[in-house]
Amino acid sequence: MSTFTHIRDGQPSMVDVSAKPSNKRTAVAEVHVDLGADIVSKFENNDIKGPKGPVIQTAVIAGTMAVKNTAALIPFCHTLPIEHCGFEITPRDQGITIRCEVATSGKTGVEMEAMTGAAAAALTVYDMCKAMNKGIVIRDLRLISKTGGKSGDYRAESA
Amino acid sequence: MSTFTHIRDGQPSMVDVSAKPSNKRTAVAEVHVDLGADIVSKFENNDIKGPKGPVIQTAVIAGTMAVKNTAALIPFCHTLPIEHCGFEITPRDQGITIRCEVATSGKTGVEMEAMTGAAAAALTVYDMCKAMNKGIVIRDLRLISKTGGKSGDYRAESA
Amino acid sequence: MSTFTHIRDGQPSMVDVSAKPSNKRTAVAEVHVDLGADIVSKFENNDIKGPKGPVIQTAVIAGTMAVKNTAALIPFCHTLPIEHCGFEITPRDQGITIRCEVATSGKTGVEMEAMTGAAAAALTVYDMCKAMNKGIVIRDLRLISKTGGKSGDYRAESA
Amino acid sequence: MSTFTHIRDGQPSMVDVSAKPSNKRTAVAEVHVDLGADIVSKFENNDIKGPKGPVIQTAVIAGTMAVKNTAALIPFCHTLPIEHCGFEITPRDQGITIRCEVATSGKTGVEMEAMTGAAAAALTVYDMCKAMNKGIVIRDLRLISKTGGKSGDYRAESA
Amino acid sequence: MSTFTHIRDGQPSMVDVSAKPSNKRTAVAEVHVDLGADIVSKFENNDIKGPKGPVIQTAVIAGTMAVKNTAALIPFCHTLPIEHCGFEITPRDQGITIRCEVATSGKTGVEMEAMTGAAAAALTVYDMCKAMNKGIVIRDLRLISKTGGKSGDYRAESA
Amino acid sequence: MSTFTHIRDGQPSMVDVSAKPSNKRTAVAEVHVDLGADIVSKFENNDIKGPKGPVIQTAVIAGTMAVKNTAALIPFCHTLPIEHCGFEITPRDQGITIRCEVATSGKTGVEMEAMTGAAAAALTVYDMCKAMNKGIVIRDLRLISKTGGKSGDYRAESA
Repeated sequence: MSTFTHIRDGQPSMVDVSAKPSNKRTAVAEVHVDLGADIVSKFENNDIKGPKGPVIQTAVIAGTMAVKNTAALIPFCHTLPIEHCGFEITPRDQGITIRCEVATSGKTGVEMEAMTGAAAAALTVYDMCKAMNKGIVIRDLRLISKTGGKSGDYRAESA
Repeated sequence: MSTFTHIRDGQPSMVDVSAKPSNKRTAVAEVHVDLGADIVSKFENNDIKGPKGPVIQTAVIAGTMAVKNTAALIPFCHTLPIEHCGFEITPRDQGITIRCEVATSGKTGVEMEAMTGAAAAALTVYDMCKAMNKGIVIRDLRLISKTGGKSGDYRAESA
Repeated sequence: MSTFTHIRDGQPSMVDVSAKPSNKRTAVAEVHVDLGADIVSKFENNDIKGPKGPVIQTAVIAGTMAVKNTAALIPFCHTLPIEHCGFEITPRDQGITIRCEVATSGKTGVEMEAMTGAAAAALTVYDMCKAMNKGIVIRDLRLISKTGGKSGDYRAESA
Repeated sequence: MSTFTHIRDGQPSMVDVSAKPSNKRTAVAEVHVDLGADIVSKFENNDIKGPKGPVIQTAVIAGTMAVKNTAALIPFCHTLPIEHCGFEITPRDQGITIRCEVATSGKTGVEMEAMTGAAAAALTVYDMCKAMNKGIVIRDLRLISKTGGKSGDYRAESA
Repeated sequence: MSTFTHIRDGQPSMVDVSAKPSNKRTAVAEVHVDLGADIVSKFENNDIKGPKGPVIQTAVIAGTMAVKNTAALIPFCHTLPIEHCGFEITPRDQGITIRCEVATSGKTGVEMEAMTGAAAAALTVYDMCKAMNKGIVIRDLRLISKTGGKSGDYRAESA
Repeated sequence: MSTFTHIRDGQPSMVDVSAKPSNKRTAVAEVHVDLGADIVSKFENNDIKGPKGPVIQTAVIAGTMAVKNTAALIPFCHTLPIEHCGFEITPRDQGITIRCEVATSGKTGVEMEAMTGAAAAALTVYDMCKAMNKGIVIRDLRLISKTGGKSGDYRAESA
């Protein structure tokens, strides 16, 4: 499809999905947060009193709540019953990689929910670490894969 | 400051700002959205019936509402009265660059509001263009500058 | 039906729809905004830089978000998955007419969603124009039609 | 002032109030709800078990919550600390008149809060009565008066 | 089941319900509010102008809105379409007892919705009475019963 | 003061605080959650992979977000800028005790914010543990102390 799905006669508009069948759909989004060596070094220690637990868990919770709240953030997103939402946060040389997977049974996909959840988790990590490094960069937020829906499945090439 | 401001005894926690003075603070965040040549070409036409108006304006509105809603999205963000919020969206070779500037008079800064506003605007552009290109990437979301507050002003080197 | 559906033993209460079948339902609401000749004259120019685009599009977006948020605004409204929401905004001698159409597949109707969406769009137009005319009047907000549900279809006489 | 305060270079935008002084501001908005004789007759009985209590009180509560939530509904409204919000609901021949008064100490006015509160209260009355009369009309929502702010006080002529 | 359903590899997480069947589920929660003799005595008079109507009705409305908003309050709660929500508030020697019943057709239960609704109603009663007695206690908030779902029905022993 | 502050002529209403001075105010609320021996025993292990970290931290985050959201939950609560919010969660024989402390600089107190934060944290613990014990009881939610405001400081006797 090569047109803007949200534009009707020059006015933005919600896409009508009332005639579409409801089926299972999933989406996975990914984002990287470049924290810098100083902060990453603090993640070595896995003790409960250490920072990793709270930072990562706070990001997971903020991301999960954002996934459920996506339709209130993105003007033309449809409200969908989120049946699953999971996060995978893994360390990388100078930072972390956040993956957000979302599943629903509905008439439209959950790409925006996965993208929004990953973004909110990354912003939360930024918020909890920014006092130590104002140069943190949230980069390459993108869709990794989606399943379900008439446009078929999708998997990012480099993924 | 080289510690986690949100961790107290291993538990995440809001930072106590009750003893801080209230003064004017601003923050600017920036993000790039790589849309691809196909979508960018559609932005040439500036006619009201064309897509650019709605896509960009929808992003500005979603970003502005997200700025006001930041404290509800980021667990330990303080609620602040947003006195100004402006967006500057400019075309780039293969996409667009979004700048979000926020101003307040308060006891803590608006970095998170600017970062969240830029992220929400980028996610909205993604939502309105994703039917044409699932490979859109939202990249390099970062703080460009901040003013006000005891930690002083900040300006990103490369900015 | 000639009784108050929300009153049970003198206490307000949500209507129990758990035993009702789920089917397609639509509703259309309409409202007029009397802006005055001065503001209407500014709507002549359709150029993207002109006011009409932003004012109307901002109203459409605010209305769409309000439609999705209706159950959080009206105490005894049920939460419904909004499958479509469209706005039609047309000029009138001294102002504009806003029509909001909503569709869902659910156990209860979307009259309140359509009415709330039209009201939010009108309030947004008011907000963006009030600096020019404090005498703007939002008038005759009403239901134009509804389909689906056991109470049958409805169409306003004068519509 | 005879221009659109929310339009900057053809893009909608929040008005910058950061340089404005903070002072006390009030606003009163009014709206009429034409319910029809059948419903109005049910309002005669003031007994606690009767409908009036719940309907009117539910409207007052929904209106009060909407006043506090205005900045989340109207895209370019500023967030303000609501210091007072009161409703006056009086019977009229074929319906009721709702007045909503709001007060704040801030850098911008509360006209939108008063207008939004009156609209939400009227929509709630509509919701609780619509099963009895689908022809209910919410009409003539307008600003009755405002005080405070550099644009000075305002009082509707016919008020 | 004797494990933490929300913990996966030490990270909190939403429970995946996508493979579960959707069926009717109900839950009832109860809470007591000890108001003290002074406040209870004011509840004798049932006249519409008396306090009981407003206090109780405000609590019912706040509780109903909280039930619909539960998934936004409890991080790992699923969003469910609330098909019914009813409150029963009865006087007790030194206070009141609040019962909240919720019904849905969904893939997971509404225990949290019933618990959250009862809690919000109790907090609202507290808010409206606290000026008269700062020693009000909200006690014994618990689940009374639930039906539907593979874990079967439940009824509290002492209930 | 021995009257209902929220009742005006039999209608619930927000208290007018516009004439009150703004000063620092704090409040502490406490609640107990009786989890039962089985669940408490699982709290022994403090390892990051154990349940305690996540359960407690999720409760702290949900409580903090609820504190900021109190005015949207309790109909006549004023919106206040939360300057601090901290939780103290300690084990007890058969469960845990949650303390929530809130601070603001405003025209009215934060008792409701502290009470709501403690309630949301307790409900979250309940949600994360309920699969193991449906008999969990949230009990004795009350105000422990408050400072600031013309009604003076308060400290619960038994506290």
